[in-house]
Amino acid sequence: MAHSILPCCSINSCLTTKTYLKNNNTCSAVFYNSVPLQTCKYPGTVLRPCKLRPRRQSIIYATATPMSQEIEKSTLTGSPQSSSESSAKSKKVMIIGGDGYCGWATALHLSNKGYEVAIVDNLVRRLFDHQLGIDSLTPISSIQNRVRRWKSVTGKSIQLFIGDICDFEFLSEAFKSFEPDSVVHFGEQRSAPYSMIDRSRAVYTQHNNVIGTLNVLFAIKEFSQECHLVKLGTMGEYGTPNIDIEEGYITITHNGRTDTLPYPKQASSFYHLSKVHDSHNIAFTCKAWGIRATDLNQGVVYGVRTDETDMHEELCNRFDYDGVFGTALNRFCVQAAVGHPLTVYGKGGQTRGYLDIRDTVQCVELAVANPAKPGEFRVFNQFTEQFSVNDLARLVTTAGKKLGLDVQTISVPNPRVEAEEHYYNAKHTKLIELGLRPHLLSESLLDSLLNFAIKFKDQVDPAQIMPTVSWKKIGVKTRTVSV
Amino acid sequence: MAHSILPCCSINSCLTTKTYLKNNNTCSAVFYNSVPLQTCKYPGTVLRPCKLRPRRQSIIYATATPMSQEIEKSTLTGSPQSSSESSAKSKKVMIIGGDGYCGWATALHLSNKGYEVAIVDNLVRRLFDHQLGIDSLTPISSIQNRVRRWKSVTGKSIQLFIGDICDFEFLSEAFKSFEPDSVVHFGEQRSAPYSMIDRSRAVYTQHNNVIGTLNVLFAIKEFSQECHLVKLGTMGEYGTPNIDIEEGYITITHNGRTDTLPYPKQASSFYHLSKVHDSHNIAFTCKAWGIRATDLNQGVVYGVRTDETDMHEELCNRFDYDGVFGTALNRFCVQAAVGHPLTVYGKGGQTRGYLDIRDTVQCVELAVANPAKPGEFRVFNQFTEQFSVNDLARLVTTAGKKLGLDVQTISVPNPRVEAEEHYYNAKHTKLIELGLRPHLLSESLLDSLLNFAIKFKDQVDPAQIMPTVSWKKIGVKTRTVSV
Repeated sequence: MAHSILPCCSINSCLTTKTYLKNNNTCSAVFYNSVPLQTCKYPGTVLRPCKLRPRRQSIIYATATPMSQEIEKSTLTGSPQSSSESSAKSKKVMIIGGDGYCGWATALHLSNKGYEVAIVDNLVRRLFDHQLGIDSLTPISSIQNRVRRWKSVTGKSIQLFIGDICDFEFLSEAFKSFEPDSVVHFGEQRSAPYSMIDRSRAVYTQHNNVIGTLNVLFAIKEFSQECHLVKLGTMGEYGTPNIDIEEGYITITHNGRTDTLPYPKQASSFYHLSKVHDSHNIAFTCKAWGIRATDLNQGVVYGVRTDETDMHEELCNRFDYDGVFGTALNRFCVQAAVGHPLTVYGKGGQTRGYLDIRDTVQCVELAVANPAKPGEFRVFNQFTEQFSVNDLARLVTTAGKKLGLDVQTISVPNPRVEAEEHYYNAKHTKLIELGLRPHLLSESLLDSLLNFAIKFKDQVDPAQIMPTVSWKKIGVKTRTVSV
Repeated sequence: MAHSILPCCSINSCLTTKTYLKNNNTCSAVFYNSVPLQTCKYPGTVLRPCKLRPRRQSIIYATATPMSQEIEKSTLTGSPQSSSESSAKSKKVMIIGGDGYCGWATALHLSNKGYEVAIVDNLVRRLFDHQLGIDSLTPISSIQNRVRRWKSVTGKSIQLFIGDICDFEFLSEAFKSFEPDSVVHFGEQRSAPYSMIDRSRAVYTQHNNVIGTLNVLFAIKEFSQECHLVKLGTMGEYGTPNIDIEEGYITITHNGRTDTLPYPKQASSFYHLSKVHDSHNIAFTCKAWGIRATDLNQGVVYGVRTDETDMHEELCNRFDYDGVFGTALNRFCVQAAVGHPLTVYGKGGQTRGYLDIRDTVQCVELAVANPAKPGEFRVFNQFTEQFSVNDLARLVTTAGKKLGLDVQTISVPNPRVEAEEHYYNAKHTKLIELGLRPHLLSESLLDSLLNFAIKFKDQVDPAQIMPTVSWKKIGVKTRTVSV
């Protein structure tokens, strides 16, 4: 095969083959992992380093030193762009935490919808897996390969900025380089049990989440004053009050006077609290600096497949079923698939808002497409249905029977401190008003989720299923073994 | 004068003279700074080092390394104890931030009332003075000399633990060594303008305050489960809602249902926000771990003298009049004393709760003496009167005239983002119910404060008076010069 030579590029591997270095600096593969030839734009291309600044898909790696060092790798210049990308001056979205469960699905969805997307991530979620001895049920590719695969499948580029937003020099460079119109901020430690493992994880969670968000706010103020912040909060910020939960604010009449005030917060883990802290910090900067922000108080997300992650197995999203990062419904499906009893914590009356991951990406898109006004701190409750834990157990039991599974349920001592029977009625109309069309939890989705779990059941490590983190037993001694 | 010899001691200076090292390891002074002979228990004593562990007044210095190193200096063993000290097993109070404005006054007050007191402080407040080029109007002695002077004047010991509560190893050692029954936590960066100087100070404030408090909560859980936390919050956590401000909680009837929930928070600086975060974290640990806590949402403190700091000039409290750490009324008195116009920010309708520092120490004592129940998160609004900034300016103008001062007032552009005319009615009955007898702002107190400022007016640096920190102009670049 003839090799063309592209002079203006410093990349050292073919985007679609990864075989570049192995083959004497040329790429000979035409197919890779079933990707047909036409998605490999430059098979066998010889790539020469040059000093021109790449225009797209740069990767900035932060070093551990305060002065971050940039190492940039360009993609092929002149690569095809969608029409929406070429006119995307006002549609640049930075996705912080874009390698995670919600972040990855959202990055692909927005890229697919024509937004110019950059992922900012320090990849620490992958480190947690190593440290805790847990893993995604689904095999997930490296972020670099994920982005390359996305490019090869769709022709769309996603920029990568690898580093820690708590390192403000790194974050500044990413902002100045990408100049986002919107920032979607998923980049936080997102597990309540993780934050309750020990003192150091509690402190890490609050430091990482609060300081990271402060840095994002300062970066917006300094470099992108018009940029719209879309911040992932959690329904857990509200706790379980004995009155209806409103969307962010509540109008109170008291002693003959009336005001609309932030809805009172009663979070129940150091993780949930970190989101409460973020909400207060963001609200202040909207008022003081005119930041425009949307806080998405998200419910519990279930499901794994989206239109975009389905395009190729290398785009597959992560699926957590362990006691630390696994969320309720996903965990139940895995338990049913492997014949493990469904583990209901305590009485099982704990009721929360839930949503399909396909609605997560849809909601974020709606928030990005309809930005808050300057100075506005807008709060949306992002879920579609309420279920108790017992409701979910019943639904999975019924769906399992249809597939021939004998699903049992056991009550395990509740590792958390929470009401197990309580009133719960949370409003969630604002995203519907913006156009959300929910994917409600149906039998067919449950069948699909269960079949997905069955497909991967040989990968399940039963040791990861049971809860091992106790809200009451958390101590100051750092836990050094798997949890 | 004959010198007695005390063998069981390793201290290398006389408590009352500080002349020990100068005089060939003997102390010849009988009076020092007007302290009469009878308060110097061992004049002229020769002190010999020994290896016995001292029983009282140890100083633990934290090193910068994770493993803190203890260097202990004992006082005289066998020194006189008050009867209350000797029976103080249930009255040990750790005062975090005990070298600061409120902390020092409180430490002396509780010590004087018979509590066994330890001060925990990293002394960083003194560093801020150096870094910002500001200073207390009053000369303040080193914490070591303050504690020695207190001992010499009253015979009462105060232990010192010098280190940073964000360093959990240090804090653990302090807890294990002192075994407090109550912890009074003043140990936070306490200036709103300081938190708004630049990004790094904003981040420092939230990190220092939030993580420090988390560490205190973990230390209580681990080492002193029954210990009562008395935490200094601020009235600024509530903001200026258009309804009455209750003490911590508000009962809301909404859509036909009723619940009592945390009062909504609307803080208006990164400092005030840090206290909001603390409040949420503490409330959670009370619920999850059964911590007993009292949050003292304190108003603006004025005054400088208390019964205890008046006992000796070396016990004098600090008095801040600068634009960063100076509080409104104290600052106005200094301005009046030096003929500087009173600087009203904006329209001057900003209304807040105020209290005399003599009531601060009284309120803390009441909280300590009447601890919260296990699991209770109790909130007291700690102030005695409401004033607008214009009210204060008028009061100081009138008092100044009586003393022959020509007091002018100017409106300066408001460096803060805050409502300048608003409704304000905050409840403050719980401390009264516990027995608080307020020192209301009277003409005589204003006379005294003004005379105090006049006494020190030659020490005033006019460059420190005007506000130099802007809520809107805060940037990411670290300010390296004086503010």
